[in-house]
Amino acid sequence: MFDLHKTALSTKARMGTLSTDHGTISTPIFMPVGTLGTVKAVKQDELIDKVKAQIILGNTYHLYLRPGCDIIENAGGLHSFINWDHPILTDSGGYQIFSLSDNRELKEEGAHFKSHLDGSKHLFTPENVVDIQRTLGSDIIMVLDECPPYPSSRDYAKESMELTHRWEKRGRQAFLNTSSKYEHGQFQFGIVQGGTYPDLRKESSKYVTDLDFEGIAIGGLSVGEPTELMYEMTDLNTDYLPENKPRYLMGVGKPANLLHCIARGIDMFDCVLPTRNARNGQIFTRNGYINIRNAKWKNHNRPLDPDFPTDLCSQYKMSYIHHLFRNSELLGLELASLHNLTFYLWLMEKVKERIANDSFHNWYQEKAKVLDTKI
Amino acid sequence: MFDLHKTALSTKARMGTLSTDHGTISTPIFMPVGTLGTVKAVKQDELIDKVKAQIILGNTYHLYLRPGCDIIENAGGLHSFINWDHPILTDSGGYQIFSLSDNRELKEEGAHFKSHLDGSKHLFTPENVVDIQRTLGSDIIMVLDECPPYPSSRDYAKESMELTHRWEKRGRQAFLNTSSKYEHGQFQFGIVQGGTYPDLRKESSKYVTDLDFEGIAIGGLSVGEPTELMYEMTDLNTDYLPENKPRYLMGVGKPANLLHCIARGIDMFDCVLPTRNARNGQIFTRNGYINIRNAKWKNHNRPLDPDFPTDLCSQYKMSYIHHLFRNSELLGLELASLHNLTFYLWLMEKVKERIANDSFHNWYQEKAKVLDTKI
Repeated sequence: MFDLHKTALSTKARMGTLSTDHGTISTPIFMPVGTLGTVKAVKQDELIDKVKAQIILGNTYHLYLRPGCDIIENAGGLHSFINWDHPILTDSGGYQIFSLSDNRELKEEGAHFKSHLDGSKHLFTPENVVDIQRTLGSDIIMVLDECPPYPSSRDYAKESMELTHRWEKRGRQAFLNTSSKYEHGQFQFGIVQGGTYPDLRKESSKYVTDLDFEGIAIGGLSVGEPTELMYEMTDLNTDYLPENKPRYLMGVGKPANLLHCIARGIDMFDCVLPTRNARNGQIFTRNGYINIRNAKWKNHNRPLDPDFPTDLCSQYKMSYIHHLFRNSELLGLELASLHNLTFYLWLMEKVKERIANDSFHNWYQEKAKVLDTKI
Repeated sequence: MFDLHKTALSTKARMGTLSTDHGTISTPIFMPVGTLGTVKAVKQDELIDKVKAQIILGNTYHLYLRPGCDIIENAGGLHSFINWDHPILTDSGGYQIFSLSDNRELKEEGAHFKSHLDGSKHLFTPENVVDIQRTLGSDIIMVLDECPPYPSSRDYAKESMELTHRWEKRGRQAFLNTSSKYEHGQFQFGIVQGGTYPDLRKESSKYVTDLDFEGIAIGGLSVGEPTELMYEMTDLNTDYLPENKPRYLMGVGKPANLLHCIARGIDMFDCVLPTRNARNGQIFTRNGYINIRNAKWKNHNRPLDPDFPTDLCSQYKMSYIHHLFRNSELLGLELASLHNLTFYLWLMEKVKERIANDSFHNWYQEKAKVLDTKI
């Protein structure tokens, strides 16, 4: 499934390709998040033609509740339901259940939870989240895990990790005992946990590696810990992960975070940040980020970055985009969401160029600083 | 400005072209409404490439308040501000001020009103709405009028019409005494009033005709009166309007209304209905309209009308569009807005084909019935 083409000079950055029956993905890659089967405010053809997205995410927890597996199965699977003939990854619902805090109870058999919509009771087990994702038909499915909060005591983190490991063993078995419901194949990724405890992270990396998933995700980070600690844990994890499997850091992050984590050996990212922040008026550019709602843009009658290939940057005056946001016009959300995602995918292309010509290590730290600057 | 190419057999339907410095418009035409300088949820390039819009509307009242004339003037006018190099018509604000009811006072000099945003006090006069629209730089500007409510007593309708007439005379003079602030020319349309009183409508048609505007609008209809009465007044008005001027029926309407009013001699329409109703889930099709939120679409796994050239109709399963609406996803609003406007412009093309081949009179009444049917 994964071909590693090159490892960078002086950092752990890598380039590779992930092959699925819905197409090949070149890594490092950012995956736009389509929680309910739609990347908010962006059309499917724009994801392909403008964003240059290669794979998108769906959320098992959300899709299971709405529209429900029966509707998606009747439509011929998630690809067919949402009219997307390219790769899809679905998470296992572990993170969403973790977010429910008071409305869930973890037991050995799985996670009992109440729907955030109507309070109805449900149970996710390592086995049935495989079944659900078999029904969704995503190209990459995630194993069920528990995502402990930050901070967690060492005892809690260890206990949680061990539960996750037992679930992963069951989840892997369930995957191997079942097969795709549609004409394309599916892969399953495991998830490393261990809180912010280096020895647990190391133990988890080894345990999950031994289960021989097609790819390995790093979970439990970007949940409130300091950024440096997130980098440290990522760095430690990738030291214990096999070279020949793709590595996916879940829920990260800002453009600068992506560069730092690519340098620490990550191949895949997902995050709602580019679209959620777009809807709040935060626009990422090659020279830093802006808040378009700020009064400084009210009378700014030039495009933001005429040479950057998005309509927001090259076609419109900033005064107009500011006007759209100040008046809650849908066009503002559309243009900004499209722009931020295009920016993220553009950044991945720049990274690959830098790795290819052996200049990534000389470039990424300074670039990360620039991208993290408010202008 | 206006060339009348053909009048239909057996009805008063007409075909013509309106020439502006931003392009030529073939009539009958529907003009999408971009209240604040954006047609809600639709991108400018989609208006051209997909909707095939030839002219859009802006609202003087709204644009005057937000972002304000200074911002638009600094940006080089409304076309430049919103990045739209095609014709724009702006209304005079008369209708919006009428809608403010308790927050406006009409005097001889003009309309005093309080902003719906912050309660600030403003005055629109026949002269300053010309100045404002000179600053906006729209291709077609509207004269200030009063739009009386339905029902109005004959005395009120007469008094209101006479005030509108005095305002129109002043407005026309103001237009003739000023010139465009930009490199393109502008035209001014007058507005016929008279409530639902045939003799007043007739008197107003003649009065406004005599002021020799470049085009004539029929105002004060579609404000709550029965549809048949709206048709009757429209029919009467066009009997007294010159053949060689374009006729614009303001604020109308549903697809069936357009067909009936074209048969009564109307060339131009605008209405928020296709976009507003799209956002509520009402989708117009060649076979009638649907409400996509209805449970009947929940498991409907086929496109609505595979041969109709919109993504909503031909690319997506209805179950998915239903899912988007039930979950308030922005993509639903985008696809439905784009679809309904494309449908309106498609309908105008069909009308022109029918007028051209002399079959409009045999077609429009039956078609209007079909379009007005819920499916």
